[in-house]
Amino acid sequence: MEKQFFIIQQVVDNWNTQLKAANKLLSELSDDQLMHEIAPGKNRGIYLLGHLTAVHDHMISLLGLGETLYPELIPIFIRTPDKTVADIPSATILRANWIKVNDVLNAHFSKMNADQWLSKHSSVSAEDFIKEPHRNKLNVLISRTTHLANHFGQLLLLK
Amino acid sequence: MEKQFFIIQQVVDNWNTQLKAANKLLSELSDDQLMHEIAPGKNRGIYLLGHLTAVHDHMISLLGLGETLYPELIPIFIRTPDKTVADIPSATILRANWIKVNDVLNAHFSKMNADQWLSKHSSVSAEDFIKEPHRNKLNVLISRTTHLANHFGQLLLLK
Repeated sequence: MEKQFFIIQQVVDNWNTQLKAANKLLSELSDDQLMHEIAPGKNRGIYLLGHLTAVHDHMISLLGLGETLYPELIPIFIRTPDKTVADIPSATILRANWIKVNDVLNAHFSKMNADQWLSKHSSVSAEDFIKEPHRNKLNVLISRTTHLANHFGQLLLLK
Repeated sequence: MEKQFFIIQQVVDNWNTQLKAANKLLSELSDDQLMHEIAPGKNRGIYLLGHLTAVHDHMISLLGLGETLYPELIPIFIRTPDKTVADIPSATILRANWIKVNDVLNAHFSKMNADQWLSKHSSVSAEDFIKEPHRNKLNVLISRTTHLANHFGQLLLLK
């Protein structure tokens, strides 16, 4: 079990590294810069911040850690593309939401053991999980870390 | 050991997923598109392809799997920024190099066991590795998967 946890910790460390890099970048970008498109005709920085916040917020329920905190972000930042909803939350609000959802996740992550990481996430049935044990909470963390890295690379272009 | 390998396999699967997505994108981008900047004044697609190829190529030696195949890429795509070296390899050559380095890596990855993944990479000394056992081959894979995702997000902007 100790060795399993050691391996899992490497995955959690990578999540924390990406999150730290994203937070540093966000602290360096002004609210004005967030209003810019990452490339001509592409998503704005603020949309990516809202999108990442909504996706990480959804992790709270997907990992069985509680209720999604800001469900109002889902229609704006997950179900519809950028520049289709006129009235979106301000950068100030999104920055605060972003900090909050990651704080909630990390408070849980710091206490989870290997068995908990390898247990099923809430979108898979108990029956399917027997056949597909890789559909566990660790896999959600792995794929969301990649998702964060993907958009972090894009947000870097705003500098 | 089996459970350890199961966890490691999730990390390897994520690498394969990112690589597959990158290869699909590269197959959809023309050589002309690769010559474009991902955003005004930023790296060109061809530079990112060369950069990713050089970084993955370096993994071969870092993971103790053999010699770097294309060391000539290092000064162009790692040591210097884009648009500073006039004469760079063609997209045709870089696409072939990219396929080759990943084929070499994956031929090894498909045979590595948990102990091998958790053994030290070649940039850490045996003494330091005793104190810092996370500096293992799995960690190289985790960080390079994130690196790939980072630039994949940028290459997507060329579409």
